[in-house]
Amino acid sequence: MIVIGIDPGIARTGYGVLSTGTRSPTLLTYGCIETGSECIREERLLEIHTRISGLLDEYNPAWVAVERLFFSRNTTSAMQVSEARGVLLLAAAQHKIPVAEYTPNQVKQAVTGSGRADKHQVQEMMRRLLRLEEIPRPDDAADGLALALCHINMGQLR
Amino acid sequence: MIVIGIDPGIARTGYGVLSTGTRSPTLLTYGCIETGSECIREERLLEIHTRISGLLDEYNPAWVAVERLFFSRNTTSAMQVSEARGVLLLAAAQHKIPVAEYTPNQVKQAVTGSGRADKHQVQEMMRRLLRLEEIPRPDDAADGLALALCHINMGQLR
Repeated sequence: MIVIGIDPGIARTGYGVLSTGTRSPTLLTYGCIETGSECIREERLLEIHTRISGLLDEYNPAWVAVERLFFSRNTTSAMQVSEARGVLLLAAAQHKIPVAEYTPNQVKQAVTGSGRADKHQVQEMMRRLLRLEEIPRPDDAADGLALALCHINMGQLR
Repeated sequence: MIVIGIDPGIARTGYGVLSTGTRSPTLLTYGCIETGSECIREERLLEIHTRISGLLDEYNPAWVAVERLFFSRNTTSAMQVSEARGVLLLAAAQHKIPVAEYTPNQVKQAVTGSGRADKHQVQEMMRRLLRLEEIPRPDDAADGLALALCHINMGQLR
């Protein structure tokens, strides 16, 4: 089973694609979709939608795992993230791929054992668990991988 | 010139399409895209995107006028509206149609002369200005029409 984890944002949308092997998850790819602040927002959303749709076409995942934002002190930022979430949820629906949502704390707990882990701890755990030579960068990409791994772990618990 | 005004929402997205005639704007259509709460959010966003894309195909407007949300006390509601905004901004970008944004107060000021007008006043003004027999319903559809009219009026001021 292939799972893509996506951490949405208008400037940087991190993603990671994992395949559940017989023993442990295997890395297929990870990366970060960056959009320039010189572009108007509609073009940034179009770029995110096009790139995510391309990943869904290429890897045909069984699940999309997305970060759930419950609350933000910065309403403007929360609204921008939500617009990016809107286009990626749309891409999932257009590909008929089910979506699972996890809070940042659930993801940190699932991959590091602590809901309070910092960004570097998440990157380091992803390096170890996926047997990478270096930590996945940027942290948005590591968050995408962590979301995918969280979903796989949750599935094994069920 | 044809202008579509859209007031986004996950449950109800109101829209109105106006054509600027030689004297005064002419109504082409208005309505409300309703999505059922029994559907999962991705399907609701897909429905909104499909219906908005269909309207852009059919009327090929020169502008999309959208409500800008600056702040909301209810963060969950603001995030849901923003997800719907995301897919409609995407539809505009996919059709290469420029987007203009107006705050609710700008719209009310433009169509009633008062930024404090209530929903019924907006509906009643739209009925008069567009020479309709009845007020446009629901209020979301009237808001869509008011957005389109606000954009046309702003253009005449420029």
